[in-house]
Amino acid sequence: MLKDFEKKKSEDKTTLNNEIKVLREKLLSQQQLLRDAKLPVIVLIEGWSASGKGSLIKELISEIDPRFYNVVSPPIIPESDLRMPFLHQYAAAIPENGKIAFFDSGWMDSAVRSFLYHDITKTEYRHRVRQINEFERQLKNGGYLIVKIFLHIDKEEQFKRLKDLAESPQTEWRVTRDDIRQQKEYKRYMEAFDDFMEKTSDTAMWHILDGSRKRTAVRDALKLIVDRIDRGLSDGKYTGEPFEEEFPLVSMPKLADVDLSPSISDEDYKKELKKLQSRLTELHNIVYRKKIPVILCYEGWDAAGKGGNIRRVAYPLDPRGFDVQPIASPLPHELNRHFLWRFWTRLPRTGHITIFDRTWYGRVMVERLEGFCSEKDWKRAYNEINEFERTLTDWGAVVLKFWIHIDKDTQLARFTDRQNTPEKQWKITDEDWRNREKWDSYEVAVDEMLALTSTKNAPWYIIESNDKKYARIKTLKIIVKALESACSEHFDKIIS
Amino acid sequence: MLKDFEKKKSEDKTTLNNEIKVLREKLLSQQQLLRDAKLPVIVLIEGWSASGKGSLIKELISEIDPRFYNVVSPPIIPESDLRMPFLHQYAAAIPENGKIAFFDSGWMDSAVRSFLYHDITKTEYRHRVRQINEFERQLKNGGYLIVKIFLHIDKEEQFKRLKDLAESPQTEWRVTRDDIRQQKEYKRYMEAFDDFMEKTSDTAMWHILDGSRKRTAVRDALKLIVDRIDRGLSDGKYTGEPFEEEFPLVSMPKLADVDLSPSISDEDYKKELKKLQSRLTELHNIVYRKKIPVILCYEGWDAAGKGGNIRRVAYPLDPRGFDVQPIASPLPHELNRHFLWRFWTRLPRTGHITIFDRTWYGRVMVERLEGFCSEKDWKRAYNEINEFERTLTDWGAVVLKFWIHIDKDTQLARFTDRQNTPEKQWKITDEDWRNREKWDSYEVAVDEMLALTSTKNAPWYIIESNDKKYARIKTLKIIVKALESACSEHFDKIIS
Repeated sequence: MLKDFEKKKSEDKTTLNNEIKVLREKLLSQQQLLRDAKLPVIVLIEGWSASGKGSLIKELISEIDPRFYNVVSPPIIPESDLRMPFLHQYAAAIPENGKIAFFDSGWMDSAVRSFLYHDITKTEYRHRVRQINEFERQLKNGGYLIVKIFLHIDKEEQFKRLKDLAESPQTEWRVTRDDIRQQKEYKRYMEAFDDFMEKTSDTAMWHILDGSRKRTAVRDALKLIVDRIDRGLSDGKYTGEPFEEEFPLVSMPKLADVDLSPSISDEDYKKELKKLQSRLTELHNIVYRKKIPVILCYEGWDAAGKGGNIRRVAYPLDPRGFDVQPIASPLPHELNRHFLWRFWTRLPRTGHITIFDRTWYGRVMVERLEGFCSEKDWKRAYNEINEFERTLTDWGAVVLKFWIHIDKDTQLARFTDRQNTPEKQWKITDEDWRNREKWDSYEVAVDEMLALTSTKNAPWYIIESNDKKYARIKTLKIIVKALESACSEHFDKIIS
Repeated sequence: MLKDFEKKKSEDKTTLNNEIKVLREKLLSQQQLLRDAKLPVIVLIEGWSASGKGSLIKELISEIDPRFYNVVSPPIIPESDLRMPFLHQYAAAIPENGKIAFFDSGWMDSAVRSFLYHDITKTEYRHRVRQINEFERQLKNGGYLIVKIFLHIDKEEQFKRLKDLAESPQTEWRVTRDDIRQQKEYKRYMEAFDDFMEKTSDTAMWHILDGSRKRTAVRDALKLIVDRIDRGLSDGKYTGEPFEEEFPLVSMPKLADVDLSPSISDEDYKKELKKLQSRLTELHNIVYRKKIPVILCYEGWDAAGKGGNIRRVAYPLDPRGFDVQPIASPLPHELNRHFLWRFWTRLPRTGHITIFDRTWYGRVMVERLEGFCSEKDWKRAYNEINEFERTLTDWGAVVLKFWIHIDKDTQLARFTDRQNTPEKQWKITDEDWRNREKWDSYEVAVDEMLALTSTKNAPWYIIESNDKKYARIKTLKIIVKALESACSEHFDKIIS
């Protein structure tokens, strides 16, 4: 705790410098081992204004090869302009396997400051703390090594440093209104920092270092990092155990029990389509003004009609306010990070709509069935995905998930048609036929996925698509209804 | 020209709709051919406020598979906050091979508006027009198909549309101050648009479409795109001829004539290092405040000492204000775009320093010698690189390029040392030995590169590095001198 932190004693300078030298050499030799072991490392440096975070990082990186690390600084653009979930910028900056990311202030500074400035409510703050715990745990379970440091200085020391900065014309610009506020309300900040650290020590411990003893802090930080890496290297890449949390779920039928006969006449289709699309245009307008982010997720059997369905939803939308993200196999730099990374970096801004043509659910379908991840990985993913989606809905997003469903005969008919129609041949590959052979295993996986991840806040909808037109109308209706409800007063409170 | 544009006649609706249907089917069938031919397409839609750019794009994309296109809208964040060169956001959004990017307003709107609003001077505007021409030509020469459309409506039509928007509570928010300004100063804008289009028609013609005839505009736009793609498909991927422009060059010696004997005593090294690093810390501070972007480029022989040199330069810098970009072989999504794309997307913001550990010069070294690009490609690259760097220095950047130089014997000694020292073994690979065998071809390529790309605004410096310490001091001196001169009054004018 900061409130009972005891200052470090002065140490012999030569001994300190020698220790630092040895630790730096150790860190240097770990570089290569980290790379070979494909271990990613996150070093979070938080602390008071003027506590010397920048200088500390400078000392930590001074000997590391630039190919092995990255320093992540807070963006210049304020959160409100970024229009992304709170954790987005941090999630987007996690390191690749084998590399170290140093965060120069991160999620702690941001969460605590927003709370103390009353930019967010107490409930939102509580949500953020929970999201942070989930975020850290997910990273740890995905093999990330995490070191968290808080650089502490007392009120008098901070005053002195800020005064020194303010009095030199070279550095006065560095003293911000935030810094002065912190100095003025030092006690309030200290309580908030202590509270935050207490609530976020489950996954990775906080280490409070004495910022008023610079060399000691460098030595201690180096030691923490070197020890953590040593331990990581000897343990090998960690894979967390599946972990179940209670999410309020919507009960889903088994795929085998879904009646696929519903259909619609051409005449009704045209009428309904026109009506729903024109309503969707209006709603997109409101969604944009109310700054509601909308995330539409499409999964389904090959040839179920995802593409045509998506086009009917996209057509009435203003192209300036939506995008479609087709999700294929991960690229090398995506594979080298946490599996949710490539989705974090594809989220819509507030007021925008992103349609995911396939999604993060690949983890519990193709990656599970093809063995692209371990059993623990995909079993853990149900919970991780529920958490991820709750983070999105906490942010105010509308998240709707569609399973575009057909039966095996219909798929065969469509595959055959594609094969026999020259313009459609590109749509059918050997892989589609191979996947078809695994229909039964997929069905088991999909049933499990639907049962475990249809949360109240981000529900699944099974869309009967033997009749594609029926499927499009049903999807549009669900979207229209959800957006209408999101645009009603409830959301005015969450999104200001 | 807009000023003598003749309105389109009304056309028979059924015929129009049939034409549109046929063209859409054609575009649909081209999707796959584009992908196979790996042709990227850029469709730029510019035009008046309320001319219907968004609706036009909506109609153009309505049948295309989302995997094949992307709509690029202007960012919500103002240019001054982005702190990037003017073209950055467009260069970052160019499509991958086989895909279409629709720009909903782009470089034209941005350049003309900044000029009319007096956000930039006449000279800066002239620079931007030149940069745009270079940008478009580079893309075309790199195989991009480009279609440029301007959607025109007259003053009365714009007035009517803005009035309609303003009078409905649903849409009044869409009328911005910019729109009203355009309506008020319609004539001034028209002259500026005409002037811009006249100056930017060399690489890709402008097509003015009548925005007051929506279906006609859709048909015409589809036709332009479909025809352009047809032509592109039958011609095959275009590779532009090398094209030489006169750049003011600094004369460079041949590598063979460089005296590699300079060295420095340990004592002088320590003294100088300390002095220069402390000066660099001060300068980084000023650079940050003056918002000068700094780009340091490192190239050199394997084992020449680039890494250690970079570390000595980086050490005194504030980690919040610089990053090192190690450049390895391009990833698949990078290979699928113009070769400069991965550098456009790695530039520093204003006030920041980016150190490139290897650079875009790979094009005229490894890619040339290993045949990773065609002869035309690398021969064209000298000029393209000079243009790219001029774009950076026009923006206000300090661009310094270092060739870290050693002789063949020194390299052998260092390779052998690496091989024999366990902690250094990771630094030496078979590829290094293979490259060493090609020393003579590399030397020819490097001499040519230094001779053709050492421009006055972005000069090369040969750094004698047989004595690594000497090399570090020399590099630091060059950087300090360049930053001192950049921080002097001259730059106060360019960067405000």
